[in-house]
Amino acid sequence: MANVLTPQGEDFPRWYQDVIAKAQLAENGPARGSQVIRPSGFALWERMTAEMDARIKETGTENASFPLLIPESYFTREADHVEGFAPELWMVTHGGGKELEEKLAIRPTSETVIGEYMAKWVNSYRDLPLLLNQWCNVMRYELRTRLFLRSSEFLWQEGHTVHESYEDAHAFTLRILHEVYADFMENVLALPVLRGIKTEAERFAGALNTFAVEALMRDGKALQMGTSHELGQNFAKAFDIQFQGKDGRQAHGWTTSWGTSTRMIGGLIMGHGDDAGLRVPPNLAPVQVCVMVVKDTDEVQTAARKVADELKGDGLRVKLDHRGDVAFGRRAVDAELKGYPVRIEVGPRDLKNGEATVVSRVAGTKETVPLGMLAEAVAAALQGAQEQLWNEALEFRESRTADASTVEEAVEAAQSGYARLPWDACGVEGERKAAESAVTVRVL
Amino acid sequence: MANVLTPQGEDFPRWYQDVIAKAQLAENGPARGSQVIRPSGFALWERMTAEMDARIKETGTENASFPLLIPESYFTREADHVEGFAPELWMVTHGGGKELEEKLAIRPTSETVIGEYMAKWVNSYRDLPLLLNQWCNVMRYELRTRLFLRSSEFLWQEGHTVHESYEDAHAFTLRILHEVYADFMENVLALPVLRGIKTEAERFAGALNTFAVEALMRDGKALQMGTSHELGQNFAKAFDIQFQGKDGRQAHGWTTSWGTSTRMIGGLIMGHGDDAGLRVPPNLAPVQVCVMVVKDTDEVQTAARKVADELKGDGLRVKLDHRGDVAFGRRAVDAELKGYPVRIEVGPRDLKNGEATVVSRVAGTKETVPLGMLAEAVAAALQGAQEQLWNEALEFRESRTADASTVEEAVEAAQSGYARLPWDACGVEGERKAAESAVTVRVL
Ligand SMILES: [Zn+2]
Ligand SMILES: [Zn+2]
Repeated sequence: MANVLTPQGEDFPRWYQDVIAKAQLAENGPARGSQVIRPSGFALWERMTAEMDARIKETGTENASFPLLIPESYFTREADHVEGFAPELWMVTHGGGKELEEKLAIRPTSETVIGEYMAKWVNSYRDLPLLLNQWCNVMRYELRTRLFLRSSEFLWQEGHTVHESYEDAHAFTLRILHEVYADFMENVLALPVLRGIKTEAERFAGALNTFAVEALMRDGKALQMGTSHELGQNFAKAFDIQFQGKDGRQAHGWTTSWGTSTRMIGGLIMGHGDDAGLRVPPNLAPVQVCVMVVKDTDEVQTAARKVADELKGDGLRVKLDHRGDVAFGRRAVDAELKGYPVRIEVGPRDLKNGEATVVSRVAGTKETVPLGMLAEAVAAALQGAQEQLWNEALEFRESRTADASTVEEAVEAAQSGYARLPWDACGVEGERKAAESAVTVRVL
Repeated sequence: MANVLTPQGEDFPRWYQDVIAKAQLAENGPARGSQVIRPSGFALWERMTAEMDARIKETGTENASFPLLIPESYFTREADHVEGFAPELWMVTHGGGKELEEKLAIRPTSETVIGEYMAKWVNSYRDLPLLLNQWCNVMRYELRTRLFLRSSEFLWQEGHTVHESYEDAHAFTLRILHEVYADFMENVLALPVLRGIKTEAERFAGALNTFAVEALMRDGKALQMGTSHELGQNFAKAFDIQFQGKDGRQAHGWTTSWGTSTRMIGGLIMGHGDDAGLRVPPNLAPVQVCVMVVKDTDEVQTAARKVADELKGDGLRVKLDHRGDVAFGRRAVDAELKGYPVRIEVGPRDLKNGEATVVSRVAGTKETVPLGMLAEAVAAALQGAQEQLWNEALEFRESRTADASTVEEAVEAAQSGYARLPWDACGVEGERKAAESAVTVRVL
C-alpha cells in the first residue's frame, strides 16, 4: 500500500499536517490562525471534555460562564498580567454600527473578569473555597500558527479558585495538576507526563508559580499539555477579593487558575500516531470499535448490524460502517488513519464459517474469531491496546531521557528528547544559553 | 414567611429579575448586554445541552467547531442575510497591536462561514446529507437587554445541514422541530409548545421559511423557544455548495439551519416559576433531590450522607446540604428558590423514629417517611412533579387561548394569552395592525 502520509522519519511536521488533513480532523479558518475542527477531530475533544469535566467536578469545582469580551481597563490592574497579554489581544472597537466608548478585548484568559465577580461573591470565610471552571473559546494573536498546537482561537477549560490561605491554594493547585490533569493524561490518553514547576521565564503572567505537565512527542520534543498556576494574592489585591476570616478580620483571598486546551489533541496525535495515522487509546476513543461490511449483501449488512448492536449493548462506543458504495480498501485505510483501536470486518466468506475478522490497530494483528466470541476478543484487544500505547510511550520517554551535568551536555541531549539537569548546574544564565539553541527548561 | 421575591401578580418582570438574582442564576457582565451565568444557572444549561445533544445526535448530526470571527465580506454574499445582521454586528478591527486588513465580525450566527466550508466538503451526492451542529457563543448588539431572554452574548447550538433535494431539506427542518426541539421541551422541560411557521416579517434573514416552537409564559406572553429554518438554495448559491448528483449533473444543495439558546433558561423560569422561586421539572433538574441536615450532629450528618448515597446509587441527581453553620430556615428558603423538586430533611426528631421528612416543591406537600421507604416516596414525588408541571402549563395555555375572527378581537385576546385567528382574517395588513398594539403573529 502506498503511503497516504509523509513518513514521520522523513518530515515529522509534514506528517502531522498530513494526518490532520487526511483524517479530516481540522482545517485553517478564514481569520489568521483560527481553526475549523471537523467532526472527527471534535469527537476527540468531546471525549476529552467529558473525562476532564468529571474529574474537575470530583474536586468540588462548579462550571459557570463568563463573558467573551473584557474591558481594556481590566487588564491594566495587574501589572505583570497586562505586560504578558497586551501584545496578544484581539480588540473589538465597534458594536451596532457605532464606535464603543471603551475598547473590549476578546478574552485571552479570564483571570481579570472572573476576579471582578469573585470580589462580589466572596464576603466571608464561609464562601471559601470558591471553585469555578468554564469551558469556552479564547483568542491570542499569533503570527506563526499550527493546528491544535498554536492557534489564535482555541477551545479550553479555565479553572479559577479563591482560597482562605496560601496552603489551601497551594494544595489545590497541585491537586488539579495530579488528580485532574496527570490522571487524565496518563489513564485516558496513555501519555506519561512529567509534572513540575516552571522557571520564572516560563511562568504565567501574574503568577507566583506555574506548575505544568509535559509529555514527550514521537519526534523527541516535549509538549506542554496543561498548566496550574498559584496566583498568590496578586489578583486578589488587584480586584479586591476580600473576606472576613474566622477571626473577624478582613483578608485578601489566595487565587489559582489552571487550564488545558484543544492543544491536547495535538499531543494525542504526536504522542501516539504512526505512519498509518492516528492511534487513539481505547479509554479516550470516541469510536472504540468500527464494524465494517466487506461486501454490500443483505446477509452481511444484517450480520454487521447485529454485531454492532451487541457491542453497543455491552457499553462500548461503536460505529457501523455500512457503506457498500465505497470501496472496502479505501474504508480500511480510513479506519487506520482515524486510529480506531479495533475494527471488525464482516464479510461473506467469514460469515459462512460463523466468524468475523478482528483487526487491532495498535498490535497490528488480524484474527478470525467466532461470532459468539467477539465480545471477549474485542475486550481483550481494547485492554491490550491501552496498555501497549502506554508502554510504548513510557519506553520511548525513558530511551530519550539523558542525565546531564552541564548546560552544554543538556543542550546536546535535548536534540532528541529530555535532558535531566540539576537546576544548580543550569540557573537563569544556563536557561538563557539553552534558549539560544532552541532548548527550553521544561519543568524543575 | 416574608416574600423573598416580588410577587408575580404584582410585577412579573420584577419577579423575573428577583428570581435570577436570589437563586444566583446570572448577573450582567461588564460589556453592554453580556452576562455571567453562575453555577446554579449554568447547571440548568448543562442539563439542557446534555438532553438536546443526545437528541441531535439521534438524527445523525455530528458536532464540530467553527471560528468565532467571520470576515466582513462573507456577510455581503447573501443579500437578505447581510441586511438582517449588519446592524447587530460586533466588529474586531485590531489584533496583535495592529489594524487588521479586513474587519472581522464576531459571529451572530454561522451560516456564512459554515457555508464556505460546506462548499469544500460537498462534492458528490454520496457526501449528502451533511449534518453538522455546534455548541458555542454568539453575539448580537442589543440596546435593551434582559438576562437569558435578550442578551448581546448568548450560548446556543446551531445546526447546519445540506441536502440533495428540497424534500429532504424540508423533512429535516421539521424533524428537528418535532423530534428534537418540541420533544425536549415537552418531555423534559414540561412546557407544551405551539409549532408552526413564521410570517414573512418574522422570518430568518435569508430563509425560505422559518418554523418555530413557542411556549406560553405565566404572564400570558408567548416566548419563542427555538427555530428551524429552510434556507432553500439561497446560501448554497451564495457559497457555491454544489454536488454531482446520481444523474452525473452538478446541482446546488438545499440547506437548513436551526437553533436554541440560553433563552430556554428564561423560558423555564417564566414557564414554571412561582412566588417562592423556580420550579424545575425533575427530568431536567440538575438537583432532583436535596438532602438537608436539620441539625449539625454526628448522627444526623451520618444519616443524611447515607440517604444521599443511596439515592445517588439509584441513579438520581442528588445534592447533600450538610452546612451545619448556616441556619436551616435560610437553607430551606434557598432550596425553594432554586426549585429542587424534592428535598429530604434529616433531623434528630424524625431519626429517632427511623424517619425523614420529604418535601415536594411542586405539590407543596410535606410528609414523614420511614427511611426504608424513601426511595419509593422520592420516585413517586418526582414523577408527580413532572406531571403536575406539565398539566398546569397545559391548562394555563388552554385557559389563555381564545378563538378570534377579526384582528381586533385577536389583539384583545392577546393581552392575556394566545389568540387563534385564521390567517385569511389577518394577513400582512392585520399583522402590521396588531404590531401597533405590540401583538405579534407567533406561528401559522
Ligand atoms: Zn484589596
Ligand atoms: Zn453556485
